[in-house]
Amino acid sequence: MSAQPSPAPSAAVLAPVKFDDRGLASAIVLDHATGEPLMFAFINREALEKTLETGLMHYWSRSRGKLWLKGETSGHTQTVREARIDCDGDAIVFRVEQKGGACHTGHRSCFYRVLGPEGWGETGEAKAFDPAKVY
Amino acid sequence: MSAQPSPAPSAAVLAPVKFDDRGLASAIVLDHATGEPLMFAFINREALEKTLETGLMHYWSRSRGKLWLKGETSGHTQTVREARIDCDGDAIVFRVEQKGGACHTGHRSCFYRVLGPEGWGETGEAKAFDPAKVY
Repeated sequence: MSAQPSPAPSAAVLAPVKFDDRGLASAIVLDHATGEPLMFAFINREALEKTLETGLMHYWSRSRGKLWLKGETSGHTQTVREARIDCDGDAIVFRVEQKGGACHTGHRSCFYRVLGPEGWGETGEAKAFDPAKVY
Repeated sequence: MSAQPSPAPSAAVLAPVKFDDRGLASAIVLDHATGEPLMFAFINREALEKTLETGLMHYWSRSRGKLWLKGETSGHTQTVREARIDCDGDAIVFRVEQKGGACHTGHRSCFYRVLGPEGWGETGEAKAFDPAKVY
């Protein structure tokens, strides 16, 4: 798909997406260049439409109860380069170009903790930005 | 982590995992060797415990309302090689060795449809198995 703004998504694009009884589907976000998992969040129909119209990832924030343009505060936007939907239509993998870092902690990826014998430990990767300066 | 069966997961492993008001967290499953996204499903606490104890992916089936060992019917099990948890603890990326294919349609990955100008189209990758012979 193109990251350029495009017209409202067609029925052929929206119909296969299955939103659950909360109106949500799952968005799995990978780095376009490396395939690294960056974050996971939920989308509703409006967030999906805005994402497809603008080429920038939008989510539904369950905690804030509102539509959320990723990077609205931080400038760390995610430009969509590819989208794949799963067999039952309730999860979409988006490959994106990530500005800065995806995680509010300053890490490039929200998945910066790996399971070891003692529990979850940080991978030790350097932070992509200083969250105190961004948020 | 090891794929060998291990003792019951410790509090240090379970405490950071945040289950929602349905008792569920999100499981994102990638191919260990290639990083390819294979499937997405939900886990509850019991599914996570069984996954960690056996080294084989278990899920919670919302449609069937039961614990589900992936590959129980098909033999297409997923052996966990790595697990990473996200910043807010409600999503885990599992890297697995996938036997056969992850998708009940016969595709190796459930994400076999990609978004193009006309909607979602199959990527054209050959199927990993014949579902009529497996299910």
